[in-house]
Amino acid sequence: MPESQELYERYVQKMQRIADVRNANNVLQWDQETYLPVKGNALRGQQISTLSEIAHQLFSEESTGKLLQELLTKNDLTLEEKRNVALSWEDYEKSKKYSSQFVRKLSAQVNKTYYAWIEAREKNSFSVYEKDLKALIELKKEETHLLGFQQHPYDALLNEHEKGSSVSLIDKTFKEVLPTLKNLLNRIESKPQVDDSFLKQHFPKQQQWMWGLYLLQDLHFDMESGRQDLSTHPFSVSFNCHDVRITTRIDENDFGNMTWSCIHEVGHALYEQGLPENQYGLPLGEACSYSIHESQSRLWENNVGRSKSYWKNKLPQLKTFFPDQFKDVDLEHFYKGINKVTPSLIRTEADEITYHFHVFIRYELEKMLIDGSIGTADIPHFWNEQYQKWMHLTVPDDKNGCLQDVHWSHGSFGYFPTYSLGSFYAAQFFNAAKLDLPSVASGIASGNNLPLLEWLRTNIHGKGRFYNSEDLCKAATGEPLHISIFTAYLLEKYKAIYNL
Amino acid sequence: MPESQELYERYVQKMQRIADVRNANNVLQWDQETYLPVKGNALRGQQISTLSEIAHQLFSEESTGKLLQELLTKNDLTLEEKRNVALSWEDYEKSKKYSSQFVRKLSAQVNKTYYAWIEAREKNSFSVYEKDLKALIELKKEETHLLGFQQHPYDALLNEHEKGSSVSLIDKTFKEVLPTLKNLLNRIESKPQVDDSFLKQHFPKQQQWMWGLYLLQDLHFDMESGRQDLSTHPFSVSFNCHDVRITTRIDENDFGNMTWSCIHEVGHALYEQGLPENQYGLPLGEACSYSIHESQSRLWENNVGRSKSYWKNKLPQLKTFFPDQFKDVDLEHFYKGINKVTPSLIRTEADEITYHFHVFIRYELEKMLIDGSIGTADIPHFWNEQYQKWMHLTVPDDKNGCLQDVHWSHGSFGYFPTYSLGSFYAAQFFNAAKLDLPSVASGIASGNNLPLLEWLRTNIHGKGRFYNSEDLCKAATGEPLHISIFTAYLLEKYKAIYNL
Repeated sequence: MPESQELYERYVQKMQRIADVRNANNVLQWDQETYLPVKGNALRGQQISTLSEIAHQLFSEESTGKLLQELLTKNDLTLEEKRNVALSWEDYEKSKKYSSQFVRKLSAQVNKTYYAWIEAREKNSFSVYEKDLKALIELKKEETHLLGFQQHPYDALLNEHEKGSSVSLIDKTFKEVLPTLKNLLNRIESKPQVDDSFLKQHFPKQQQWMWGLYLLQDLHFDMESGRQDLSTHPFSVSFNCHDVRITTRIDENDFGNMTWSCIHEVGHALYEQGLPENQYGLPLGEACSYSIHESQSRLWENNVGRSKSYWKNKLPQLKTFFPDQFKDVDLEHFYKGINKVTPSLIRTEADEITYHFHVFIRYELEKMLIDGSIGTADIPHFWNEQYQKWMHLTVPDDKNGCLQDVHWSHGSFGYFPTYSLGSFYAAQFFNAAKLDLPSVASGIASGNNLPLLEWLRTNIHGKGRFYNSEDLCKAATGEPLHISIFTAYLLEKYKAIYNL
Repeated sequence: MPESQELYERYVQKMQRIADVRNANNVLQWDQETYLPVKGNALRGQQISTLSEIAHQLFSEESTGKLLQELLTKNDLTLEEKRNVALSWEDYEKSKKYSSQFVRKLSAQVNKTYYAWIEAREKNSFSVYEKDLKALIELKKEETHLLGFQQHPYDALLNEHEKGSSVSLIDKTFKEVLPTLKNLLNRIESKPQVDDSFLKQHFPKQQQWMWGLYLLQDLHFDMESGRQDLSTHPFSVSFNCHDVRITTRIDENDFGNMTWSCIHEVGHALYEQGLPENQYGLPLGEACSYSIHESQSRLWENNVGRSKSYWKNKLPQLKTFFPDQFKDVDLEHFYKGINKVTPSLIRTEADEITYHFHVFIRYELEKMLIDGSIGTADIPHFWNEQYQKWMHLTVPDDKNGCLQDVHWSHGSFGYFPTYSLGSFYAAQFFNAAKLDLPSVASGIASGNNLPLLEWLRTNIHGKGRFYNSEDLCKAATGEPLHISIFTAYLLEKYKAIYNL
């Protein structure tokens, strides 16, 4: 074996070993959200911290750096091999910025804050969790200095979730899109409203669960390479492309709660199941970025899952699951109802327009929390003020306000903006797929989602981290991200629904 | 802090870190048996191997040895602290005998063999798995040389499962007990047989599951520190004393299949839940030995769970779960039926007498496989011959023969004898508990199992690994293990049931 190949083989083994530890940790976290007995929490937190620390140590140790540096000088590697090495080197340099101690401290504080958040939700009181959140934010501030930044400390955290991202870029993006959305919302509000009351009937739990499994199958989620369970907060997590887990929740009085959450998580899961198997543990076996990940969930949830075309085929199926509930609902009625636009308190239940106000409010808050211009105690006040300002809503309590998202208790600051970016990418990808392959649109209308999935497999999933978000977008669609594609999609959709 | 305490603190942290990795690995294995999607097997095996290797490396590295050696010289540690250090040193010296490579190789071969065993069972053909089993046995033979032995290579493996155990000791034990059992069986077979047909009616799955949960609660399994799930082969596993998982299986046409398996696994779980919480990761936070572990499961399963006293209180409860099935069964009928003695093919379904023939056959086989006097290919022939010899049974196929136990595919050679030892210890412990506290017997008869559990907590569970099996037995019962207590228990029991 030539020396380069031997070195590369050693690199692969090392990276797989680290991936094994990280994925084991993912199993621990999946279990924590699904099956962990209540008193098991304390030591589970410690176990997670230990594995986090070990994974970090294995990756950031000197020998990794030496191996990568040697590989960086080799010219006889394939393009893909070179890309893996370059990305690992990038990750390595970032990883070196963290001490083991910091990794452990952060992981322990995340676990503490997560359980404080659960308790705060139970007691419907932000103050229950404020102290722990404050401690966590202090660590995140420390992290911005470890990572380094040029302009705004929050840039460091944004960049963690979306390479190259910054406050000035995200500000610009929101400045471009929000006025259009606000304007669209105003126009919609001046028109007669659509009826969605049929979604709020009684839908028995077991029947919803069966319907969810039907959806999974219909969307080509591979049940031999994954599973669905129940959890309080739906999420998806992968241990490798043949073991991708999603969770859902069921509200017996709200059909939409499970259905679109299911489709959303399947979107994430299809991405993970479509990552190249032979790149396990390597950058090319990982998802491109958070925003591209979110593009996959939003694409299936909204561009497909809230389209008339999709339900043209699926509504008759749905009626076999819930014959009584939908007997008087025709396609037009159903389609309009599931796309009702109305300002609401809960992000995950928001329509495709107001969703981005929710994201923006969180983004603004995070920016100020991280640069210290407001403190943790100010969160409820700022939150409530902003919901009033953007959506004329009075937040009745913390559970329906600043306690609704799990993200902060996980230490995920800088994550939310990728939700909006994901929606923008989704619109552009879906557009490109339909232009590339006529079978994408006709397939969906006739109940065959495979052409779309195959387009995504080829152009997005199969690429792993080969490209960054922007370059992937260019490679897949021929253009950089154009937000106008997203706004045009919304305009066309809601024009028809609300007779604008 | 005095130097000794500082050193001891470092030792505790290190040991907890290693325990975290081992327990994470236990979670991976629990998940593998309960929820893992089918295609997730391959990489799960790799993930388990990686964690095994890391745990081994962390424990066997030079710095552990130095720390322990320093601690061994300290006189100002408490008795418990000294015991922890001494046991860890013993473990460390053993651990050093394994190379990382061997640990990884063994773990990978176990995973392979396990899936080959599953396939072999599906195809009902031993030969499907013979090649992998052979490779695994070769590694176990290698292990006997790594560990070292004086007389018989199998001694090394026996000693792994029961410290101080050896072929000559186990031979002697079986020589003492088997003739008595054989004689008892002969006498029983000459008497009119008892009826157990009421156990083979239809018992709906969901109702059995509810009944199982009732049993768990009744036996004081703490559902906040553990859970029960379904798996093909029932087992118990612990991630710490506040997260102990058991599994069960349900046969709708056999009431006994789930019920006594449930009680058996609860026995294991009560032990784990009763280990001292403040000793997490340390020897005193671990179970004493395999045989003592098995004594806890057998004690609850048989000495309690097949006693007339227990069912006097429980049968009325059972009738509320299955009113039709048990309406014509009175206590006497029920008690005799659940204690029916009859040679059978499946170990886990065996009565308290013939059970030990099953164990002995496996022991004999292992001894010869490890010393090479027979080869893997000879297993089915030897197995079938022995079942004929000991129980006059014709084994119809491999699934009902040498493919029935998971142990070999896990590489657990030397494990089976602890099952018999466990039964012997169980009889002696139960005897001692009843003599110590009159409330033990009266409690069980009146549906209160707490006095017995408390006796076990104080005399067995709370001790961790402070004593070895034999010393624990002496401390708890005032006597070394006397097999005569076990045989006397059987004699008294079956005399009454069969009018011997």
